[in-house]
Amino acid sequence: LLVQDMSSIDSNEQVVFVGGAQWGDEGKGKLVDYLAQSYDVIARAQGGSNAGHTIKVGDDVFKFHLMPSGILNPKAVCVIGNGCVVHLPTLMDEIASLEEKNIEWEGRLLLSDRAHVVFDFHRTVDGLREKKLSDKSIGTTKRGIGPTYASKMNRDGIRVGDLQFDDFPDRLKSLVDSHVATYGEEALSVDVDAEVKLYQGYWEKLQSMVCNTVSYVNNAIDEGKTVLVEGANATMLDIDFGTYPYVTSSNCSVGGACTGLGVSPMLLKGNYGVVKAYTTRVGEGPFVSELEGELHDKLATVGHEVGTTTGRGRRCGWLDIVQMKWSQAINRWTHLNLTKIDVLSEFDEIKVCVAYEIDGEQITEFPSSLTSLENAKPVWETFEGWGDDITGCRKWDELPEKCQLYVNRIEKLMGAPIKWIGVGPGRSAMVFKE
Amino acid sequence: LLVQDMSSIDSNEQVVFVGGAQWGDEGKGKLVDYLAQSYDVIARAQGGSNAGHTIKVGDDVFKFHLMPSGILNPKAVCVIGNGCVVHLPTLMDEIASLEEKNIEWEGRLLLSDRAHVVFDFHRTVDGLREKKLSDKSIGTTKRGIGPTYASKMNRDGIRVGDLQFDDFPDRLKSLVDSHVATYGEEALSVDVDAEVKLYQGYWEKLQSMVCNTVSYVNNAIDEGKTVLVEGANATMLDIDFGTYPYVTSSNCSVGGACTGLGVSPMLLKGNYGVVKAYTTRVGEGPFVSELEGELHDKLATVGHEVGTTTGRGRRCGWLDIVQMKWSQAINRWTHLNLTKIDVLSEFDEIKVCVAYEIDGEQITEFPSSLTSLENAKPVWETFEGWGDDITGCRKWDELPEKCQLYVNRIEKLMGAPIKWIGVGPGRSAMVFKE
Ligand SMILES: Nc1nc2c(ncn2[C@@H]2O[C@H](COP(=O)(O)OP(=O)(O)O)[C@@H](O)[C@H]2O)c(=O)[nH]1
Ligand SMILES: Nc1nc2c(ncn2[C@@H]2O[C@H](COP(=O)(O)OP(=O)(O)O)[C@@H](O)[C@H]2O)c(=O)[nH]1
Repeated sequence: LLVQDMSSIDSNEQVVFVGGAQWGDEGKGKLVDYLAQSYDVIARAQGGSNAGHTIKVGDDVFKFHLMPSGILNPKAVCVIGNGCVVHLPTLMDEIASLEEKNIEWEGRLLLSDRAHVVFDFHRTVDGLREKKLSDKSIGTTKRGIGPTYASKMNRDGIRVGDLQFDDFPDRLKSLVDSHVATYGEEALSVDVDAEVKLYQGYWEKLQSMVCNTVSYVNNAIDEGKTVLVEGANATMLDIDFGTYPYVTSSNCSVGGACTGLGVSPMLLKGNYGVVKAYTTRVGEGPFVSELEGELHDKLATVGHEVGTTTGRGRRCGWLDIVQMKWSQAINRWTHLNLTKIDVLSEFDEIKVCVAYEIDGEQITEFPSSLTSLENAKPVWETFEGWGDDITGCRKWDELPEKCQLYVNRIEKLMGAPIKWIGVGPGRSAMVFKE
Repeated sequence: LLVQDMSSIDSNEQVVFVGGAQWGDEGKGKLVDYLAQSYDVIARAQGGSNAGHTIKVGDDVFKFHLMPSGILNPKAVCVIGNGCVVHLPTLMDEIASLEEKNIEWEGRLLLSDRAHVVFDFHRTVDGLREKKLSDKSIGTTKRGIGPTYASKMNRDGIRVGDLQFDDFPDRLKSLVDSHVATYGEEALSVDVDAEVKLYQGYWEKLQSMVCNTVSYVNNAIDEGKTVLVEGANATMLDIDFGTYPYVTSSNCSVGGACTGLGVSPMLLKGNYGVVKAYTTRVGEGPFVSELEGELHDKLATVGHEVGTTTGRGRRCGWLDIVQMKWSQAINRWTHLNLTKIDVLSEFDEIKVCVAYEIDGEQITEFPSSLTSLENAKPVWETFEGWGDDITGCRKWDELPEKCQLYVNRIEKLMGAPIKWIGVGPGRSAMVFKE
């Protein structure tokens, strides 16, 4: 039933983006995995191994950090685009884990020659920076993402394609030197010669998958192929639109699909936002609708809110409409996938944050400044819970009326049509809303 | 005549981007200035005062680096978006130059609270980095753009809106400290207290123009207002798609309009590329169709190819179709503005680079690697010159036949419709091609 529904992709869906509409972990992996059955090319455009996607297929659970989730669709070609930053040992590990489960990947995985390389010293630097910030730390995953993007901006970063050239050793040396100058030799000791050898070795192993993915993807589109861009992280972690500095160092909102893949906005047609029926956040930073105590713990427990990448427990709270309207303004989601609504079945009373109160004033526009966010108090709208288990529902009509009321109301508040409703972790646990 | 033609903007032109299709200095300023007459909002989305726009209005010549060119249209609201990096003293200077010529700007110029601040030490660092690279220097404008974007990625950058808060002095101190650690106190001596005072002073002066421009622009669009995004720099200088590392540290291709302004690709309808009838480049980096000797000097002299921002002479060569097809793939320009074709009137023979020869092989796909680019030799297609002065032409029919042949041929090669043809520096020196 599910696959059939997508089998005829109309022209509005030839090139689509799937992105997280909140702070990540919305369950993008499941929608991508599901859509992937119908797409020729699945691409990632930003971030690195700081992303974490969990996909359950039968009894197998796959956890990817760098690999596009589409790799599980044997017909899809998967692309790691120019906007990504790539830790090659992690990529090798994920490839090994595919081989373990006998998933064919050769010829189906392409890596952009323009993607920047995350070296281990970038990870060390990430940790050192976090340590120095102590109580003001950002709560990064320490995967070296931020420092690598900083190298990219400083224009001494090293791209995957650069590994093959004679000047790679010199360039790496100069990149390492400038970091050692900053952090000291004690904190950051790098054996450059060994790194050079290691990475030249990676090049030998990986070069067959390295290509000009910008041309590849554009040619595919011109030939009528379908392309799905899989967002990593989420809008509220966007370097520009998130709660800076508590963000990741790339554009995780829809614009990043264009800059990170070389696909013009003129070609992007569908834009699917994934929104959890409540809110979670990993790491530090403001979170207005956050809960404490019993309710928090119940959401965390029922929702299994533990990070894929870090294993850290996630902070939990109710759905935040102020945040979602901001997400909607920036992304203009054409359709939403509401996920994990089954988790709410356990609650007698469900709340939604519909405005912020700051210094006695009610506002509905998401503020830019941390100071305002830190002073904001949630204004709630309350719903009666539906109680019944909904994990077996597959059709809109099968959902309890109170659940339908909730969905219709938040759809109206968020200002974008909800197309898919996730009612359980399994691949097929999805309700279509017409 | 010109203004009339644009007076009715159809829905495909409600939100448009104007970008440089080559290495900059294509004459974007003139098209933007001309279109600006019909647009409600003119916004910049990336770059800083490394851009240079020259606009001639009657006898007045305006040179802007940071200010959107639309400021000369008294009805337009101009926005400096979240993706820009802003050197506040330069902004103050440009405002002063407007006041000198009695151009009203108050209430018409908005600055994003999320734009990052370029401090003078960022400029010093820019210079130090270039010096260290010596013969491998990038040829930056030393305006501190790269180091500021690096700070943004490192998440210790300071946004315009942050200047007002109590933790600004501490944050500035820690930002300065980490740079001093890298470059040494001798090379980089910063009086943090004085800087804090100075910038708190700027905040006082500028705060009335600072706002959440993401919401402003999105609300304007929802109200039916028209928005023109003015690209700075150009596609081949894009941090992702340009000839890295000889690029600027932002996305200058069309995707940057989305990430740098908070306007979704779903809203962007028109995408106008500006392409000079030949090629120029400022700074270092590969340039396959570059000329030398007499022909070079003639192009440079007739075309007045001297940089607005740096005063440096520009490198000149013939039009490069391989590069333009790359530009077209990434941007999918809906229309092109061919500029400075009048300069070619002086040449008996006009060439166009239609392929690259690398190691004896002809290729038409723009290579990612510098090494390939450095080894590439241009393959030419030759046209007869038209000889006649065309600066007085305003209609397609008035152009010499040989000139029409040239335009039609390159239009076909580039794969996008040419809508406007620039035939001279003046505001009205433009031919429309139906
Ligand atoms: N209960 C429930 N779990 C879901 C649903 N959709 C996805 N999940 C699970 O929620 C988790 C979210 O995935 P995660 O990898 O953290 O998020 P992502 O990075 O956005 O894909 C995974 O364990 C999924 O199997 C749903 O509708 N209901
Ligand atoms: N001869 C000639 N000059 C032009 C034309 N269009 C623009 N210009 C001039 O060329 C220069 C290009 O502007 P510049 O500021 O360097 O480029 P921009 O940054 O892309 O706007 C300015 O001096 C313009 O007045 C044209 O069609 N013909």
